[in-house]
Amino acid sequence: MTTTATAPHATLDTVETVPSFIMDSWWTPETGSAAATPVRDASTGELLAKVSTEGLDLAAAVEFGRTTGQAELGKLTFHQRALKLKELAQYLNARREHFYGFSYQTGATKIDSMVDIDGGIGVLFTFGSKGRRELPNSQVVVDGPMEVLSKDGSFAGEHIYTRIPGVAVQINAFNFPVWGMLEKFAPAFIAGVPTIVKPATPTGYVAAAVVKAIVESNILPKGSLQLVSGSVRGLLDVLDYRDLVSFTGSAATAKSLKAHPNVVEGGVRFTSETDSLNAAILGPDAVEGTPEFEAFVKSVVTEMTVKAGQKCTAIRRAIVPQELVSAVSAAIGKRIQERVVVGDPRAEGVTMGALASVEQLEDVRVAVQSMLDAGGELAYGTLDSPSVTSADGTTGVVDAGAFMAPVVLNWDNPEAEALHSLEAFGPVSSVVGYTDLADAVRLAARGGGSLVASVCTNDPDVARELVTGIAAHHGRVLMLNREDARTSTGHGSPVPHLVHGGPGRAGGGEELGGIRSVLHHMQRTAIQGSPNMLTAVTGVWHTGADRNFTVDTEGTHPFRKHLQTLRIGDAVRSDLRQVTLEDITAFANTTGDTFYAHTNQEAAEANPFFPGIVAHGYLLLAWGAGLFVEPAPGPVLANYGLENLRFITPVAAGDSIRVTLTAKKITPRETDEYGEVAWDAVLTNQNDEIVATYDVLTLVEK
Amino acid sequence: MTTTATAPHATLDTVETVPSFIMDSWWTPETGSAAATPVRDASTGELLAKVSTEGLDLAAAVEFGRTTGQAELGKLTFHQRALKLKELAQYLNARREHFYGFSYQTGATKIDSMVDIDGGIGVLFTFGSKGRRELPNSQVVVDGPMEVLSKDGSFAGEHIYTRIPGVAVQINAFNFPVWGMLEKFAPAFIAGVPTIVKPATPTGYVAAAVVKAIVESNILPKGSLQLVSGSVRGLLDVLDYRDLVSFTGSAATAKSLKAHPNVVEGGVRFTSETDSLNAAILGPDAVEGTPEFEAFVKSVVTEMTVKAGQKCTAIRRAIVPQELVSAVSAAIGKRIQERVVVGDPRAEGVTMGALASVEQLEDVRVAVQSMLDAGGELAYGTLDSPSVTSADGTTGVVDAGAFMAPVVLNWDNPEAEALHSLEAFGPVSSVVGYTDLADAVRLAARGGGSLVASVCTNDPDVARELVTGIAAHHGRVLMLNREDARTSTGHGSPVPHLVHGGPGRAGGGEELGGIRSVLHHMQRTAIQGSPNMLTAVTGVWHTGADRNFTVDTEGTHPFRKHLQTLRIGDAVRSDLRQVTLEDITAFANTTGDTFYAHTNQEAAEANPFFPGIVAHGYLLLAWGAGLFVEPAPGPVLANYGLENLRFITPVAAGDSIRVTLTAKKITPRETDEYGEVAWDAVLTNQNDEIVATYDVLTLVEK
Repeated sequence: MTTTATAPHATLDTVETVPSFIMDSWWTPETGSAAATPVRDASTGELLAKVSTEGLDLAAAVEFGRTTGQAELGKLTFHQRALKLKELAQYLNARREHFYGFSYQTGATKIDSMVDIDGGIGVLFTFGSKGRRELPNSQVVVDGPMEVLSKDGSFAGEHIYTRIPGVAVQINAFNFPVWGMLEKFAPAFIAGVPTIVKPATPTGYVAAAVVKAIVESNILPKGSLQLVSGSVRGLLDVLDYRDLVSFTGSAATAKSLKAHPNVVEGGVRFTSETDSLNAAILGPDAVEGTPEFEAFVKSVVTEMTVKAGQKCTAIRRAIVPQELVSAVSAAIGKRIQERVVVGDPRAEGVTMGALASVEQLEDVRVAVQSMLDAGGELAYGTLDSPSVTSADGTTGVVDAGAFMAPVVLNWDNPEAEALHSLEAFGPVSSVVGYTDLADAVRLAARGGGSLVASVCTNDPDVARELVTGIAAHHGRVLMLNREDARTSTGHGSPVPHLVHGGPGRAGGGEELGGIRSVLHHMQRTAIQGSPNMLTAVTGVWHTGADRNFTVDTEGTHPFRKHLQTLRIGDAVRSDLRQVTLEDITAFANTTGDTFYAHTNQEAAEANPFFPGIVAHGYLLLAWGAGLFVEPAPGPVLANYGLENLRFITPVAAGDSIRVTLTAKKITPRETDEYGEVAWDAVLTNQNDEIVATYDVLTLVEK
Repeated sequence: MTTTATAPHATLDTVETVPSFIMDSWWTPETGSAAATPVRDASTGELLAKVSTEGLDLAAAVEFGRTTGQAELGKLTFHQRALKLKELAQYLNARREHFYGFSYQTGATKIDSMVDIDGGIGVLFTFGSKGRRELPNSQVVVDGPMEVLSKDGSFAGEHIYTRIPGVAVQINAFNFPVWGMLEKFAPAFIAGVPTIVKPATPTGYVAAAVVKAIVESNILPKGSLQLVSGSVRGLLDVLDYRDLVSFTGSAATAKSLKAHPNVVEGGVRFTSETDSLNAAILGPDAVEGTPEFEAFVKSVVTEMTVKAGQKCTAIRRAIVPQELVSAVSAAIGKRIQERVVVGDPRAEGVTMGALASVEQLEDVRVAVQSMLDAGGELAYGTLDSPSVTSADGTTGVVDAGAFMAPVVLNWDNPEAEALHSLEAFGPVSSVVGYTDLADAVRLAARGGGSLVASVCTNDPDVARELVTGIAAHHGRVLMLNREDARTSTGHGSPVPHLVHGGPGRAGGGEELGGIRSVLHHMQRTAIQGSPNMLTAVTGVWHTGADRNFTVDTEGTHPFRKHLQTLRIGDAVRSDLRQVTLEDITAFANTTGDTFYAHTNQEAAEANPFFPGIVAHGYLLLAWGAGLFVEPAPGPVLANYGLENLRFITPVAAGDSIRVTLTAKKITPRETDEYGEVAWDAVLTNQNDEIVATYDVLTLVEK
């Protein structure tokens, strides 16, 4: 299907075409190689494959997603989709070595490949877990509390999320063919939105190899994933407001997509993540010899050399106290000298591979030369071809392969525009000095919006000032100090739990961030109506909606119902029970909670909120449970928690309380013999005034 | 300043110019009237004022907002800003009659004016309240829980919102000059982002009158509000990714703004709300004679006639069961016949005023004619000039004024493109038939994305199918039935609590929705670091951060500290207390909670979660309080609630528990002598295993 072995004497006519997976079938062009693009090994320059989508019917692919894909995904709940992601993650995890083979051809080292492949599979695991822990086991997400909009409570509103009714088109960059694909696919899939993924041409064969495994796994519903290996020219012409385009790549391409009439007028949802001039700021406290200085230098070198610096999150600008510019530059150079071995990633000992292509190498060299012309000075490294270790273990300058030595630049003028706007997408960083914290904030913001910044300090006040100062210009800020230097996941690594993206130059988009990215694939809609109608649409019981106090086949008490027969709205209301002063005193004595409001009439009366001695809130809760529990074993296995407790009206000696308990939210678990049931609990007194409201969380057998 | 009295013989040279408020000063052009636009009374056609921004330095206005406005707003917390909105609402509320005078000149009736003016002031009240109830009393919003990212807990992440560092440019439509301004201003102000508002020229003098009152009130910080009365050509040229443009108006203008290079490439945040072909769907159960049928007809007529149908939320397409098309059309006609009196809003008895201008009237007539040409038929009304009631009480057809009679259209072909895409922005609606619910969903979606739809049914299953079917195509869905027909705020009325906006043709934006709209003026940023650093940046104590168990000047226990001296991280840890079987049995007997897990060893052992008889969760809570409370009167006034309770490890007879309580979040109230303190509570057993975690919510004196 796609080729792993290099083919030394291959030509465009003889190499295989990287296939597309469209409308549930593998597809390659029927035409010749005229319009095909060659793909080469980054280290050896050998021809690996060709790429072409000539004759591919993209409109049909979109329609297939909108119909079959939507229909098949629509049969599953969030939990069911999440479980499939977990299965898929396990399936791919067992085949990592296979994928590494493809990855080496892109110039990636083993560590680079792990970032890409293990990292991508890790995203699937995270979403497989979060989708079941943080979403309901249904297809509608309720966003925020109900807002009562009429005095009598008969009219109310709230927000729901439902999936967008189109496709998610995901256009990825060349540097992380697997992670880039899976980090966009996972949230779309959980949301129930079919994906059409378009990897970048130079490394798309790695993505194709993973899609091949995904297809073979037979885990995903039909239409949930389509792959376009090659140009998607014309795709935006067939998209509309139902669809979402998520783009990662150059600002220039992002611009041309964003200016498409179907985005500007047609309402295609568009989000982009583009490279940015990410900063790392060294705090004034982090002088030489501190753990923070060491962590800073280590982080800069890591970001320069992982993936040969071809990371949109790499540190491009090290912003350090003016007096530390030389020390930092020297320490970075020293660490590169000691640690970095450039070469073919298949060779022993190599720690930094090739750039993705010789075209990419040329772009980086041009960018560095422009920076030198604009006032940058070489503090470390060279633009000359480096000595490299080849796959056979020999060392020396080679003709083929996109190899480059790491380069550190210094700047006399920290205001130079090129420093803050020119990006060399390779192993290149600048070190520049600041005068005070406000200056550091200002310099970081000169990047015009970035994906990530590091703040390296052990002083909480410095951290607060720098982070709150730069936050609005960044999608992520990493604080490095002695406490987390060893455990940090690193400046350059987006984690699935946290958003990835940034304002301005970084593209203005948001990806990942756990369930936040699932919601980006859904439409938020305000719904208004009576509590009964809000209940009907959301599947969650709402205050004011009808309750069902009647018996059913299993018995009179809702605690006697198993998960399958329990319905939202099933309810029980207890009798009144009187609270005496003796009860309160006894509770104070047994629990040790002798707070004056429960023990001293005079002091209690002086409190602005109490009429005199009142019952403990925890007495009310405990009695409430006493009023609603069914003592004998039954389907309710445990009360595992409680939410949203508010005490409203105090209960004085002589008052009585009753509890009304209503099944509010039912969440069957896919892989357990029980599920979660949240019960709306209301304590009222003898005058029907509300004493307390809360949600009781229980586990109930199926 | 702006003129209320009509000036019968005014010319462009003699009428006043509607002023702008820029850089904390009132401004009008120094040049003549050559470039000025005339503004006329909608009912009489008389010249009221002129509008021009010739010579206005918009770049300076933006810079003033970014510097002075940001600096002044930055001195206030969310609560302080919210309190200012409340004061402003009260100030404007006392001057409503004054504003109505201006509003009548736009053709608005008293009710229309109340929707605009009282509605706008209502938004200020709502945000004045929500800003203090739902946001912290600080400048950073924490979004979601902390995510632990390392095994030892030393590295974690979460999300914060900080305000965008630029200006909010708000471009409004002519139909609601006051509401349109205040509904965008309120959330920007709470977020701390300076506003530059640009009202629509035909009715901008009403907005200017309100801004005049706002300035006179002297409530707002300098730079928080600037007004541009007239063209903002060139404004986008000086905006960048730090700024936000919120546009309401035509799709054509939205498109030209959205295509601006500073939006496409420069990262200006752009959101728009444009008119849409909103639908109202009548359920198959809602036949003649049902309350739902009546509510439906009433709603259609209201939406056609309020503001003379010049509402982006008006019902343009009544989608009804095929067999009810005639009955619905007739009932709408009958109600118009009986209720609608067209005329000068200053005349007694008038229920529908003029359109905003004769140009507007001409546009509507052209649109209706196009719909007739495309297959629409007049079911009620006429395009002829209607008989109107003039201000002096006389009735007849008049020459001046932008008056139009309500028009109902029927369509033989429900698929006609014009029905679903042509908008007549006046008192015009179509009635069209559907065959089944799926067809109704499909027809509603033909609008290509709408602001709002109504679903009128008393059948919960019909409501669920229709609402979940159309939700992703809509920003808001109103469910009307007999339960809420009288209390509903209406199809056409956005409420500040719920989002306003919609996908596709509706512009793709989101406004209002309570705090959601505040967050739209802020950047979400992932922050990563040690718990101590997350604590430093957010001002909220995080699990894993240092605790302060030491004494202070007021005493040893944090409950003895007043709000000013209490610091996050102040903590107390209790001794261990043993729980015996007798304690558990006694608790079961007193509370009545005799659940088998607390009373029957054999049955408890059979439960999958318990080792045998275990203590009640509520016993643990109550004892926990007994272990941390300070009995004597002190600054802690009350425990008003509890959040996030989870029981982790069961406590068997013989086990012991202790509690560790840490000040987590401190929220001083601006207008009370106390504030809220949330305490992190952790119960642990004799083996330091976590028994339960929760947040205790208290009120603490200043």
